[in-house]
Amino acid sequence: MSDTPSGVVDLLGLLAYAELSAFLRLAEDAARLAPTLTDRAALSEVAANEYRHFRLVRDRLESLGADSEAAMAPFVAALDGWHEQTRPADWHEALVKAYVGTGIADDFYREMARAADPSVGGLVEEVLADQARAEFVVERVRNAVESDPALGGRLALWGRRLVGEALSQAHRVATSRPELATLVSPEDLAGIGRMFAQLTEEHNNRMAELKL
Amino acid sequence: MSDTPSGVVDLLGLLAYAELSAFLRLAEDAARLAPTLTDRAALSEVAANEYRHFRLVRDRLESLGADSEAAMAPFVAALDGWHEQTRPADWHEALVKAYVGTGIADDFYREMARAADPSVGGLVEEVLADQARAEFVVERVRNAVESDPALGGRLALWGRRLVGEALSQAHRVATSRPELATLVSPEDLAGIGRMFAQLTEEHNNRMAELKL
Repeated sequence: MSDTPSGVVDLLGLLAYAELSAFLRLAEDAARLAPTLTDRAALSEVAANEYRHFRLVRDRLESLGADSEAAMAPFVAALDGWHEQTRPADWHEALVKAYVGTGIADDFYREMARAADPSVGGLVEEVLADQARAEFVVERVRNAVESDPALGGRLALWGRRLVGEALSQAHRVATSRPELATLVSPEDLAGIGRMFAQLTEEHNNRMAELKL
Repeated sequence: MSDTPSGVVDLLGLLAYAELSAFLRLAEDAARLAPTLTDRAALSEVAANEYRHFRLVRDRLESLGADSEAAMAPFVAALDGWHEQTRPADWHEALVKAYVGTGIADDFYREMARAADPSVGGLVEEVLADQARAEFVVERVRNAVESDPALGGRLALWGRRLVGEALSQAHRVATSRPELATLVSPEDLAGIGRMFAQLTEEHNNRMAELKL
């Protein structure tokens, strides 16, 4: 523990709770909003995958001698806050959130891993390589939007809200956890701004993928 | 498909939806009721395990040429009904439900597998062997009951309600799906009654394990 920088424990704690809360929220959306059992199973698959990632990250935390509960605790408010601000109102919003949300998270961790301790970078890559990122979503959303252009407009706004709330929570985290911010951007705070700009651009690419 | 008895498809459809709905309800309980992040993760582990079983069973259904959605559909009302009648009011009720619920389900499938097609029996055994049946529950419930005897009384009643509602839904299923009932008890309907008596006895053993 003594030779693990506290920024690394923060990074893993953030990643762990992001996966655990994504698991639980996706399961909730699957139960609450899926129009068919097949859809429910498809979104449940995305959820179960998040749980697997959670376990990988938690095990890494514990192998570093960190208390996983303590490591996750500082990020509960930001991540729960994001989920509360972005509770899907219907199945299509749930699909877009699953796709965009797991996408933002992936980019976020990829950016952070670049700057972090090599062993953490390796873990993050392992989690990300395994990401079956809700690809089933793309076809369903495209088809729905094709036959209902008004839905497309609504989902495009929804996508902007998802990323806006995510960046707002990310700023909150960067401010309250200076060790984590330093790990991500050792040179200066402007590096954080550049990272967020990059995340937004990747988000826009995903929205284009969905034809939104 | 043509050489798969319809009772077997029923059995797998019931098992599949039982696992899928257990996954989603356990995730909901973990999100809603867990007092700590460690507890939330522990119940999430049980949930994720149920999802893995769901996938095994669904894949078997599909390899038999059955439509998994159609196979599950007849059992949605009974299983959702059970979950709605047994929504835990607090964390200890959630723990007992996880333990007792997965236990009843295991016994139920074990009994049924005995009578069913050998290939299905094999699958059911595979699912059951893999069951990490919420063993973490035992210690937590015992400790809680030891320091609060009134809680013990309340949870004992809760356990009776869980099994009572399960048997009531099982009767409903046995009545509405005669092929399934025949598969389970080819000789006569009294076999169903004996099976339910056996399930109740095993439930009582589990309650004793919890000191309830």
